Amino acid sequence: MFAVWKDNIEDVAELTYYALFALQHRGQQAAGIAVSDGTNIEYHKRLGLIDRVFDGSRPLPGGRMAIGHVLYTSTERTRSVNAQPLVIHCKRGKIAIAASGRITNADALRESLAQNGAVFSTSVDAEIIANLIAREPSLSLEQAVYQAATQMQGSYAAAVMSSDTLIVMRDSLGNQPLVLGKLPGGYAVASESCVFESIGAELIRDVAPGEILVFSPDGMHSLQLPKRPSALCIFEFVYFARVDSVIDSLSVYRARWEAGRRLSQVMPVEADLICGVPDSALAAAMGYAEGAGIPYGDCLAKNRYIGRTFIQPEQSRRVKDVRIKLSPLRSIVKDKRIVLVDDSIVRGTTSAKLVDMLRNAGAREVHLRISSPEVRFCCPLGVDTHNPAQLLASTHTLEQMCMLFNADTLAFLPPDALYEAVNDAGLDFCSGCFSGNYPD
Amino acid sequence: MFAVWKDNIEDVAELTYYALFALQHRGQQAAGIAVSDGTNIEYHKRLGLIDRVFDGSRPLPGGRMAIGHVLYTSTERTRSVNAQPLVIHCKRGKIAIAASGRITNADALRESLAQNGAVFSTSVDAEIIANLIAREPSLSLEQAVYQAATQMQGSYAAAVMSSDTLIVMRDSLGNQPLVLGKLPGGYAVASESCVFESIGAELIRDVAPGEILVFSPDGMHSLQLPKRPSALCIFEFVYFARVDSVIDSLSVYRARWEAGRRLSQVMPVEADLICGVPDSALAAAMGYAEGAGIPYGDCLAKNRYIGRTFIQPEQSRRVKDVRIKLSPLRSIVKDKRIVLVDDSIVRGTTSAKLVDMLRNAGAREVHLRISSPEVRFCCPLGVDTHNPAQLLASTHTLEQMCMLFNADTLAFLPPDALYEAVNDAGLDFCSGCFSGNYPD
Amino acid sequence: MFAVWKDNIEDVAELTYYALFALQHRGQQAAGIAVSDGTNIEYHKRLGLIDRVFDGSRPLPGGRMAIGHVLYTSTERTRSVNAQPLVIHCKRGKIAIAASGRITNADALRESLAQNGAVFSTSVDAEIIANLIAREPSLSLEQAVYQAATQMQGSYAAAVMSSDTLIVMRDSLGNQPLVLGKLPGGYAVASESCVFESIGAELIRDVAPGEILVFSPDGMHSLQLPKRPSALCIFEFVYFARVDSVIDSLSVYRARWEAGRRLSQVMPVEADLICGVPDSALAAAMGYAEGAGIPYGDCLAKNRYIGRTFIQPEQSRRVKDVRIKLSPLRSIVKDKRIVLVDDSIVRGTTSAKLVDMLRNAGAREVHLRISSPEVRFCCPLGVDTHNPAQLLASTHTLEQMCMLFNADTLAFLPPDALYEAVNDAGLDFCSGCFSGNYPD
Amino acid sequence: MFAVWKDNIEDVAELTYYALFALQHRGQQAAGIAVSDGTNIEYHKRLGLIDRVFDGSRPLPGGRMAIGHVLYTSTERTRSVNAQPLVIHCKRGKIAIAASGRITNADALRESLAQNGAVFSTSVDAEIIANLIAREPSLSLEQAVYQAATQMQGSYAAAVMSSDTLIVMRDSLGNQPLVLGKLPGGYAVASESCVFESIGAELIRDVAPGEILVFSPDGMHSLQLPKRPSALCIFEFVYFARVDSVIDSLSVYRARWEAGRRLSQVMPVEADLICGVPDSALAAAMGYAEGAGIPYGDCLAKNRYIGRTFIQPEQSRRVKDVRIKLSPLRSIVKDKRIVLVDDSIVRGTTSAKLVDMLRNAGAREVHLRISSPEVRFCCPLGVDTHNPAQLLASTHTLEQMCMLFNADTLAFLPPDALYEAVNDAGLDFCSGCFSGNYPD
Repeated sequence: MFAVWKDNIEDVAELTYYALFALQHRGQQAAGIAVSDGTNIEYHKRLGLIDRVFDGSRPLPGGRMAIGHVLYTSTERTRSVNAQPLVIHCKRGKIAIAASGRITNADALRESLAQNGAVFSTSVDAEIIANLIAREPSLSLEQAVYQAATQMQGSYAAAVMSSDTLIVMRDSLGNQPLVLGKLPGGYAVASESCVFESIGAELIRDVAPGEILVFSPDGMHSLQLPKRPSALCIFEFVYFARVDSVIDSLSVYRARWEAGRRLSQVMPVEADLICGVPDSALAAAMGYAEGAGIPYGDCLAKNRYIGRTFIQPEQSRRVKDVRIKLSPLRSIVKDKRIVLVDDSIVRGTTSAKLVDMLRNAGAREVHLRISSPEVRFCCPLGVDTHNPAQLLASTHTLEQMCMLFNADTLAFLPPDALYEAVNDAGLDFCSGCFSGNYPD
Repeated sequence: MFAVWKDNIEDVAELTYYALFALQHRGQQAAGIAVSDGTNIEYHKRLGLIDRVFDGSRPLPGGRMAIGHVLYTSTERTRSVNAQPLVIHCKRGKIAIAASGRITNADALRESLAQNGAVFSTSVDAEIIANLIAREPSLSLEQAVYQAATQMQGSYAAAVMSSDTLIVMRDSLGNQPLVLGKLPGGYAVASESCVFESIGAELIRDVAPGEILVFSPDGMHSLQLPKRPSALCIFEFVYFARVDSVIDSLSVYRARWEAGRRLSQVMPVEADLICGVPDSALAAAMGYAEGAGIPYGDCLAKNRYIGRTFIQPEQSRRVKDVRIKLSPLRSIVKDKRIVLVDDSIVRGTTSAKLVDMLRNAGAREVHLRISSPEVRFCCPLGVDTHNPAQLLASTHTLEQMCMLFNADTLAFLPPDALYEAVNDAGLDFCSGCFSGNYPD
Repeated sequence: MFAVWKDNIEDVAELTYYALFALQHRGQQAAGIAVSDGTNIEYHKRLGLIDRVFDGSRPLPGGRMAIGHVLYTSTERTRSVNAQPLVIHCKRGKIAIAASGRITNADALRESLAQNGAVFSTSVDAEIIANLIAREPSLSLEQAVYQAATQMQGSYAAAVMSSDTLIVMRDSLGNQPLVLGKLPGGYAVASESCVFESIGAELIRDVAPGEILVFSPDGMHSLQLPKRPSALCIFEFVYFARVDSVIDSLSVYRARWEAGRRLSQVMPVEADLICGVPDSALAAAMGYAEGAGIPYGDCLAKNRYIGRTFIQPEQSRRVKDVRIKLSPLRSIVKDKRIVLVDDSIVRGTTSAKLVDMLRNAGAREVHLRISSPEVRFCCPLGVDTHNPAQLLASTHTLEQMCMLFNADTLAFLPPDALYEAVNDAGLDFCSGCFSGNYPD
Repeated sequence: MFAVWKDNIEDVAELTYYALFALQHRGQQAAGIAVSDGTNIEYHKRLGLIDRVFDGSRPLPGGRMAIGHVLYTSTERTRSVNAQPLVIHCKRGKIAIAASGRITNADALRESLAQNGAVFSTSVDAEIIANLIAREPSLSLEQAVYQAATQMQGSYAAAVMSSDTLIVMRDSLGNQPLVLGKLPGGYAVASESCVFESIGAELIRDVAPGEILVFSPDGMHSLQLPKRPSALCIFEFVYFARVDSVIDSLSVYRARWEAGRRLSQVMPVEADLICGVPDSALAAAMGYAEGAGIPYGDCLAKNRYIGRTFIQPEQSRRVKDVRIKLSPLRSIVKDKRIVLVDDSIVRGTTSAKLVDMLRNAGAREVHLRISSPEVRFCCPLGVDTHNPAQLLASTHTLEQMCMLFNADTLAFLPPDALYEAVNDAGLDFCSGCFSGNYPD
C-alpha cells in the first residue's frame, strides 16, 4: 500500500508507479492507482504485475494525492473486481480505498452490514471499510474512518482518499508495517521503507500502531486509536519484507544477518562453506559465515527471470520445478561440507530438493540451518490460511524432518535467539506462527 | 438482456453467448454472462464485443440458469466496473443482476440509498436494483424485487438471479421490449425476439408492462405491478430493434415497410429509383417503392466490415468518414432521379454527405424521404441524453434542412401515419421524441 | 492489393489503410502496408483484419509511395511469415512485394529457383517474384519485373516497390481484376474500383491484361507482355467482387441484377415474394423480382456482427451454425410462396439449411433460384483448391439437389444467360468452373 | 542457442522451453523453437521473452529433435522477421536454422550471395547460413554445412535441422561457448552448461572450436574445420555467462571469484566492508573479501522484478533510473568505508550513480574496484558495436574516471591477473576489448 500527498499538482501517478514497483513483492495478483487533483478522482487498475497494468496505454492525470495498491490474494479470489483501490460513490461523494493485510472480523462485519442492507461487489476488506464509512454520513470523513477503525480487528494498513483529503491508518496491533516519509513538497506513506529509496523520499518515522494520519489542505494531523500491546509480525523480518526496509526502526537486513550469526553460535557445525538459499536467506548465511568464521559463498545460482511471470494456468506446471529456478554451482560444491542456510520451513517442499541438488553436485555433507524457529501454527492474521497439517513442523519431529530432507544435520534458530537478533530494544512482536500465541 | 431457465444442468453459457450475439446491436461497450448451477454463481464479463469477451479463454461451467447482458453506455461510462451482470453478495447470498434501459429516478434512488449508507461501485442502474433488494433482507427475493420495482421509474428490462431463482421484469410503461420464449426443457427471456431464432426458442408472448416473471424450482409464475398506460418506445420500430424482431406482436420489418409505403402515399415524388440507407432504412425503401410503383434498388454499398470494431481512441478518426462505410453504385445512380429513404434524422450529419455522394456519382435528382417524423425532443428514457440543440429538427425548418442536405426535396412521415404503420391495433406508444409528450 | 504513388510526401499509409479496409472482403487472414519516402522502406504487417493489424500502436511514416495487401489463404498457411508485403533485401537493395491471386506454375518456378540455390522463407507467390527479380541483378528493375512476368503463369495482381520506383502488373489472362485511378497529386492502383470511392480517387481505366505499369520520378509508363486471349474470372461478378466495383468497365451490381432478371425469364415460377440470400445475392433477387413482376422483399435478416471476427480455433464451432448468421422474417414469410435467390452453389451446405429455415417459419413454397450455372469444376487459378468431389453439382443431378435442399423447385441460370448478363460487349471470360475449359 | 536430439518422439519442445529459460540472459528480444518428428518441422517464434512467446496458446507437437533460440539484437533490428529459428524451404526441403553471435564477414557474404540472386527477408546471420547451404544442392547436408562454415568468419554458435538430421557448430576461434550434454535417450547442445542443470542433462564436453557435430539416425559424428588459434571471449567470464556455467572446463563463478581475490592483492585498500554490484559482481566481491580478509556483505538491494519486462517504448523512461533497480542498505552502509566491486566499466553511467547512492546513505569512503581491465576497444565480434568514444576508458585516464565517479579510489584488475584468474591452464582468449588485439 502506498499513498502520496503533495502541495501542488504533479505527476503523482508516476511516483506511485515507482513506489508500487518497489512493493511488488507484497502482492503480484493485481495493481492499481487512484489519483485526485483536489476535485475529482481518476483511477486505473487491473489484474497483473504493475508494469503490465500500467503499460502506457491508460495514462492518469496529474494530481495532488494518489493511493496505490498491489494485491496479494489466493488464486480463487484473483478476479478483476478485487483489484484496488476501490473507487466508490457514497453520500460523501467519490472515495478511493486501498487496504493490505487482513481484517480478522471481516465475516462478522460483512454479516452485520448485510443485515442492514449492504451490497458487496468484491471479496476484499477495502469494501468493508467503504461500507463502515458510508454508514456514518453525518460524521466528518476522518471521524467516520476513526469509527470504522474501532470496529476493525486484525492486521491491516489502509488508505482512504476523498477528492480533497487523504487518510492512512495502521492496525492497532502494529502487525502490518507502515512508514511515513518526506518528499519535496509533500509526504508519502508506504508499507515498507524500501519504497522511499526508489522515489527519493526520506524516512521520517513509522506510523504508530492504531494511528490514523490525516492529510488535508489544513495540513497533517493524527488521531490515535486506543493503545493495545504492540504485536509487529516477526515474519516480516524473517521473510516478507525487503532487506533494504527498516521497520519500526529495525533494519530487516541487519535482523536477518544477526539471526544467521546467532544461529552459528547456538547451532554450530564443522564445514567448508556457508551458503544461503537465494534471495531471502543470503543475509542470514552471511551472518552465519561471519559468526562461524567459515567462508561464505554461493552454491546455488538463481535464474533472474523467474518469479516474475504473471502465471497463466497452463504454465503453472512449468515453474513448479525448482530446477528451473535454482541450479548448483558444481565446481564450488564438489567435495565440500556445506552449510545451507534457509530463512524458514513452511511446507518444506523446496528444502528436500535443494539438499538433493547439492548432493548430486558432489557435496560431501549438507547441513541445513534455518534462521527462524519451527513454524507450527497457522496465522489468523495472514492472507494465506494454511491448513495446520500442511505445516511440516507441526507434524514432524526434528529428526523426521532431517531424514525427509536427506540432510546430515538440521537445526532451527530458537525463538529467543530470533527475538534478540531482530530487536535488542525490547519491542513486542507477534510470533504466533512459532508459539501459537496470537494477539486477541 | 437475456435470461434462460432450464430443468437440468446444460451449457447455458453457450446458449447465452449465442443470444447476446443476436443482441449485439443493443450494446457494444461490454458483455457478460453469469451462470448458476442451482448452488453457486459463476460469471465472466469484460469491456468489448461479445466474441472478444468470450474468446474461449474463460469457459463457464454448466448451469440451470444464466443471465447475459450487452452494455450500451456513453463513452465516459465505458469502464470495466460497469460491465454486467453485476454479481454481488448481500444478506441473501450471491445475486447476479443485469439491467438494460434507464431508470429515470436513478439519481433520487441513489441519493436516498446513500443517505442510508449505501456504497456504489459502478454507475449502472443494476447496482441500484441490487441495493433496493438488499435493503429488504426479511422479504422473499421475489417480494424484494417487487418492492424495488415499485420504486423504479422509467424504461428498463432487468433480470435478477440468485443461486436457485431467476426473476425478470419489464418496466410498467412497457417502454423497453421484453419477450418470453419456450426452449426444450426450459424458458428464455430476451430483449428482442430475434434472439429466439438464433437459439431455437419459440416465442410465447411479450412480458407484460410491469410484469415480474419468477422462475423457481416450483415452476414459473408472475407478479404484476400496478397498471399504467402502455408506452412502448416507438423508436424501437424506427431504428433500435432488429428487423427480424416482433415486439408486442408487431413485426419490426412490417412496420418499417409499411411506414415506407405510407410515406410514398403522403409524400410522393416522380423518380426513377427508390433506394434506402443501409441497413436500417432498406425495409422502408422497399415499402416506398411498392407504394409508389417505382423500382427499388441499391444505390449505396455498405462495407460489411464496418461497425464491428471495438474502437480504440486513436482509431476514432478513421471511422468517422462516411465514405469508409458507404459508397455509391455509380453505374446505377448515374442520370437517375433518386428517392433516398432514411429511417430518421437526429443530428443530420450523415444525410448531407449521402446526398452529396449520390450527386457526385451522377444522380440527376436526389429526394430525401424520412420514414419517421422530425425528432425534436430529447428522450429522458434513453441512455444518450442529447442536447436538444443537437437535434437538427428542433432548430431548423423543413426548408432549412432541405437546403442543408442539398436535396431536391425533403419530406418526413407525419406522426399519425407512423402510428398507423406500426400498429393497426391501437396500442399506445411513447412518441415523445416527436411530440414532446413523455409518460410521467 | 493496393498501391499508391504521390508527387510529394504524404500520409500514404493512412490512405492505404482506408483502401485495404475497402478490400477486406478479398482476404481476412493477414494485412500489411509498406511505405517508401523515396529513400527508405518501412512496413508493418501481421495476422488479422486490417483494423486489428493497424490499431494505432505502430504508426508508419509519411511517404511518396505505398503498397498494401490483405491475405486470403488456406488455414494451414495462415502464418505470420506469409503476411505481405514481403520486404526483402537483394542486390538492388530493399524491395517490397505484394501479390494476390495464384501463380499456377509456382511449384515449377520454386523448384527451378531452388535448384539454383534459392531459399524460401514463406509459402506465398510474392517470394517467387522476389527471387525471379533478384536473379537478374544486371537488369533495371522494370526489366527484371518484365522478365519475371514472362515466366509466371496463372492469375495474379502484383506490386513491386523499390525505394524510388513502383511497379504494378496484372496477369496476361486478365483473370484477376486491377484498376488504375487518379488521386490529387498522384495515382492509385487497386484490385477493385470500390476502393476509389473510399479514398476519393477517380477511376481512369483497368490495367490491361499483361500490362506492367511503372511509376518513377520520370512519370508513369507502361510495358506490355505478349497478348493472350482475355480470360477475366466470371466468378468475380458472381460472388467475389463488391457490388460497387466496376471491372473491365462492367458494373458488378448491374451484372448480378441482370443475371437475376434473366433467370426470371428462363426459369420463371409463380410466387408471392422474391428474396435473396444476404448479401451477395440481393442484387440478383432484385433483378429477378423486376423481371418477374413479383414484389421483392427480405425474408432473411443477417446479423451485422458476423463475418467480422478473426476467428480463434476454439470459436470455430460457434460460427458454423447458419442460425447465428441468418434468421427468418416470420411475419413476412408466413404462408407465402417464396423464391429464394442465391448467387451460386458450391458445396451446398448452407442452401439446405435456409430452405428449412423458411419452411419452419411458415413458407408455403420455397423455390430456389441460382443466378449462376452449376459449379462442376475445380479452379486451378484459385487459392482454394476444392476437391471436385466436394462440388455438389459435380456429383448430383438437378433433381437430386432439389431433393437434398428440400426445395419445391430448383433452377440454375444457364451459362449463356450469365455471359450475356455480365457483358453485352463480347468480352471473353474464364468460366472454367462451369465448363471445365480453363485457359492454358 | 540450444539443440536436442532424442532416440524417440518426446516432448522436446518443453525441454527446449526449459533450456531457453535458462539462456534468457543471452537474448531478450525474441524467442523460438522448431521441432522435427523425423518427417516434418513445426515451429513457433515471436518477439518477447520466452515465457510470453510460449504462453500455452501455441503448443508444439512431440519430436525427435528440436532447436531453440533467444534473440539478442539492437533495437532497430527487433522485428518479428528476425525471430529464430528461421524455417526455410530450399532444394533439400524444409530446414530450420538458429545462430547466435556474429559472422563478421556477413556483409561480404550477403553481397556475394545477392550478386548471385539471393533474396534476404531478415537481417540475421542465420539467413546467410541458409543461403550458403542452399547454394550447394548437390552436397549432402553435412557437407553443405561444412562448406558454408569454411566461408564464415567471426563468432558464432549455430544449429541446422532438417527433418531427419541435426547439425551444430561452433566458430573456429571458439569465441562463442558451446557445450555438449547427455540426456536419457539422447543429446543436448547448449550455449552454456547452466542449461543442463535445468533439463537434467550431464555435461560431456565443450564442442571444440571449429567442430561440426552431426546427429542423424546413424548416430553422432564430428567434422572439424581447419584449426585456428583458440580465442574464447574472455568477457563471457567477466559478464556474459551465468555464474553456474562452465566454459571450456573453466567455472565462471570460480573465475569471477578468483578475479576478485587477485584484485584484492594487487589493488588493496583499507575498508570495513566489501560489497558487489548485483548480480554479476557478487562473486568477485566475495573473492575480494576473502583475499583482503575484510567482511563481505550487501550494501545494495536489487528489485527482483526488474530486468524482466519486455519493455514497451513508452516505458523506457521508467526503467532508466538506477534507483528503481538498486537501493542502498542504509543501516549497513552508514559510516562505513566501503569497497564496491563491479565487474567492468563500459560506458560508466551506472557506476557514478552507485557511488553517490552509497555516499548519500552515509558511507564514509567508497572505493571502486573493477574486477576486469579497462575496456578500451570496440568488439568486432559482438552484436553491439559501440562507438569507441562511448567507452569511458578509451577517453579518460584513471584519475579522470575516479573523479567522475566521485570515488575515493578506483582500480582495475590488470590484464595478466584476469587471465590467470580465469585460467591457470594456458588457454588462449580473445581479450581484444582490453588490448585491441582481435583475432583475424
